[in-house]
This record gives sequence, structure tokens and C-alpha cells, in this order.
Amino acid sequence: MAFPLSDLTSTLRVAPGPIDLGKIETDAAPGFDGDKKDGEAALAELGPQLAELQERLFADGKSGGRRSVLLVLQGMDTSGKGGTLRSTVGLVDPQGVRITSFKAPSEDERAHDFLWRITKALPPVGLIGVFDRSHYEDVLIARVRELAPPEEIERRYDAINAWEAELAAEGTTIIKCMLHISAAEQQARLLARLDDPTKHWKYNPGDVDERELWPAYQEAYEIAIARTNTEVAPWHVIPADKKWYRNLAIGTLLHDALRAFGLDWPEADFDVEHEKQRLLDEKPL
Amino acid sequence: MAFPLSDLTSTLRVAPGPIDLGKIETDAAPGFDGDKKDGEAALAELGPQLAELQERLFADGKSGGRRSVLLVLQGMDTSGKGGTLRSTVGLVDPQGVRITSFKAPSEDERAHDFLWRITKALPPVGLIGVFDRSHYEDVLIARVRELAPPEEIERRYDAINAWEAELAAEGTTIIKCMLHISAAEQQARLLARLDDPTKHWKYNPGDVDERELWPAYQEAYEIAIARTNTEVAPWHVIPADKKWYRNLAIGTLLHDALRAFGLDWPEADFDVEHEKQRLLDEKPL
Repeated sequence: MAFPLSDLTSTLRVAPGPIDLGKIETDAAPGFDGDKKDGEAALAELGPQLAELQERLFADGKSGGRRSVLLVLQGMDTSGKGGTLRSTVGLVDPQGVRITSFKAPSEDERAHDFLWRITKALPPVGLIGVFDRSHYEDVLIARVRELAPPEEIERRYDAINAWEAELAAEGTTIIKCMLHISAAEQQARLLARLDDPTKHWKYNPGDVDERELWPAYQEAYEIAIARTNTEVAPWHVIPADKKWYRNLAIGTLLHDALRAFGLDWPEADFDVEHEKQRLLDEKPL
Repeated sequence: MAFPLSDLTSTLRVAPGPIDLGKIETDAAPGFDGDKKDGEAALAELGPQLAELQERLFADGKSGGRRSVLLVLQGMDTSGKGGTLRSTVGLVDPQGVRITSFKAPSEDERAHDFLWRITKALPPVGLIGVFDRSHYEDVLIARVRELAPPEEIERRYDAINAWEAELAAEGTTIIKCMLHISAAEQQARLLARLDDPTKHWKYNPGDVDERELWPAYQEAYEIAIARTNTEVAPWHVIPADKKWYRNLAIGTLLHDALRAFGLDWPEADFDVEHEKQRLLDEKPL
């Protein structure tokens, strides 16, 4: 199974240069030759492998390794950032994961550079950090809603690239994903929330106002992706109308990133036989 | 199923007064009438209920509620704090959980009161916080290893009770659990780690030295439990030689605590029909 899924990873990686989101189908399943049932089965099969690879990363971190993973999830409202977390990150030991959901910055956070609160939320060595929204909001909503002057937005693309390059150099594998849904799919999902009283708490009337800015957001994504799509921190655009495909895609990206570390279990830094004998020889407690 | 499992919760709650851990069997399954297979099936059945109750708590927190849960896991090395986390906390949405593993305090942490770092790790409203070790180390290892003067240890029991009472008054349900294994079971688990190269990274020769202090640790637990077993923050002693029982017990305690909130889904604070119409009437994007 590893081979077709790895095709999926390379398929989703955004090529260098300008990007036209309108040309990327939102309801496709590129790189995967199967239907919903096949996709769910493939993710279920990936689960135990993901869990073992995550534990190897954790063990590496406990044994002096400096590696970690940072998964950045971006996307319009209802694109499924939360659902992805449940379905893929939920497959590994919760002790090995640090999830941060970024909201509008607080007054205290706004008193610092935009990367200050992001840096504080980085995963320690051995962990998988997940950002549900991220520093990219500072060049997305900030651009669309003009929350910062144009020259400051310009500065931020370069600041992000420098910051991510430093992070990667320290041992963090960065996986950036845009969950790509259509405006029609978002409308359907918002209507479904309104039809289900157990989902009303997730609904915010402001989301409908934001929909009017859909084209501006798509443009802001295109600019942000093109400006920050680097070798060490590449972007992936995930067609996300099909939830099963979105989950399988993110699970596969995570899997391939962990596997690329090529980690063995850490070797004992003590004499195993001697320790066994100590335990067997001890006087009764 | 709810009824027999709730019996389990009340069974595990420590009665007020002195406690003799030597009289509590470590390989028993009190309050549950079934074997390993039954226990694993009961936990699997509990999973979806736990997940829904956790989501209701999360929704409540997003809608102005002030509730949260704090699960404190204590126990000797190998007693299964990590395994419990994977098996029970892993059943709910990882976004709704904040896990903190406490190690020996850093220099910075030691420059503050012992509750300083604990307070910083408390779960926000709507979340389930889990402590893998906790402020109780400051009256357990600190007592056994004489890391603080006796009068300071004495002061800490009262400080913990006052701090936990305040926390409970603010809306946090506190569940304190001691995972209770026998010295023989710990020996078997340490030997099993030595026999499995994929587990060597979890083994620390210092753990064997610590075993010599087993009776002192048991005594320190007895004192700590008796001194801090309050109405608002009660202790539970979980027989933990049987991993399936330990998992079922913690899962049930968490379930019962969440259910006791009696939370409905938050009601919409907007006009549902009006919102539907807005979405249906919008001009094409």
C-alpha cells in the first residue's frame, strides 16, 4: 500500500510558481485509485503504521533526538480542519501530539510580532505539532480585511520563509496543507449545520458575511502559497469536498513525513543483561 | 450498561479516613462482573458515549460555560499512566484534551511555589485536562527522597486542598486516581521492557534503585491520599495489574464525571430560519 499512497503525497505537493486554485478540482481524489470505501479502508490500514512511526519519533525525542513534525492546516470555514484532526491525528497516541487552535490574537499577542504566539506553540522535540489555523492567518484574513498595511503584509511573507527555514534547520519537518473546498460545498455544509441542532454551536452568522469575500480569500491563498512554497516547507492543496479523501491525504502526508526520518528504536544506553540480573537478584520488598 | 459501570465508580472511590494500600488487591476487578473480553467490550461500547459527552463539554465551553475536567493520574513506574491515556483519552477528540506530563521541576519552576507550574497547565473551559504525574509528586517523591523539609511537606497537603477546592468552585470536576500495582507486577513489567528492544528507551536503571523504596512510596501514597481525599476532589484507587480493568475503570470515571454535568447541546443564539434564508438568497460568488 505504501507505494500508491506515496504517489498521493507527491501529487498533492504544489509546484513552484504561481497557483490558480480555480483550476484545482475540490471534489477530486488525485493520486488515489479507489472510492470512499477503499479510501476509508486505506486510512484504517495506515493507522497502526502511523501510531508506530509516531512512537518512534517520541522515543527518538526522549533519547536525545532533535526531530519533530509541524502540520499546518489552513482552509475556509467548514473545510474540515477539525474533522481531519479527529480522523487522522486521532490515530496516534494523544501524548505524542500538541494541537493548537489559533483564534483572533489577544491584546497581549498583538503587542508582539505576529510570529511570537506561533513560536510559543511549537512542538517540543519528539512531538507532532498541529496548527489549526496558523501564522498564515496573518497574511490571509489580515490581507483580505486589511488588518495590517500592505507593506507589513509584504514583509510577513519573507519573515515566514525565514522563520520556517530556521525551524526546518533545527529538525522540524513542516507540512503545510490548504483544505480546498468549493463555495457551493461550504454553503451545503453551513446549511447542514443549521439543520442539525447538535451543530448550532459551531455556526457563526459572521461566517456568511465572510463568504461574500470568497474570491478575495482565494486570491490571498494563491499569493500566500506562491510566496511561501519553499523546498523545506512546501505547500499541499488537498481537495476537501470528499471528507474521506481529505482524511486519507493528510494521514498519508503525516505518514510519509514520519517515515522519511528513517528512525530505528533507540539503542539501550545501559547493560541489558546486568539490569535483568539486578531485578532478579533483588531482596524481597 | 450505565448502571453496572456506575457501580464501578462508587466502588473505586476511597472512603474518608486512613487507607491501607496493602489491603487493596492489585489484580482484582472490583465493581465489574466480567472477564478481560467483557471489559474490553464494555470500554469499546463506552467510546462513542465518551466522545459525545466530551463534545458537549467542548460546545458548552465555546458557548459561555465554565466547566472543565481534570484527571490526575498517579502511580509507580510502569503502573500504566501512559497506556491509560492511549486507551481511554484516545477515545475522544484530541482537540478536546490537554495532556501534561510532569517531570522533575526545572530550575525556573523550582524558583516558584510548587503549584505554579501545575496552575499553568490547567485545562481551559470546555476541555479535559490530564496530568500524567502532578502536584502530588511534591508530597510523594518529595517526602520519600526528602526533597523538602517535613514542615514544608506538611504545609503542602493543606495548600493542595485549598487549591483544589478553589478549582472545583470555579467549575472544574477533579478526578484523582492512583494506579495501584504490586511490586511483583512492576518487576515483571520492567523485565518485559528489558526483553523487548522496542521498549528499551522506556527503561531507566534508576527505576530499579527506586524500587528499594517501594514501602516508603506506598506509605507516602497512603498519607497523601488520606490527607487530600476531599468531597470536591476525591481519590480513587484503581487496581491496575489487569490493564483491561484499569482502562475500563478510568474510562468509566471520566464518563460518569462528564455525564454528571448533564449538558444539553447549546441553543442557537441566532435566528436559524433567517440564517438559512440568507444562505439560500445570496448572490453567486
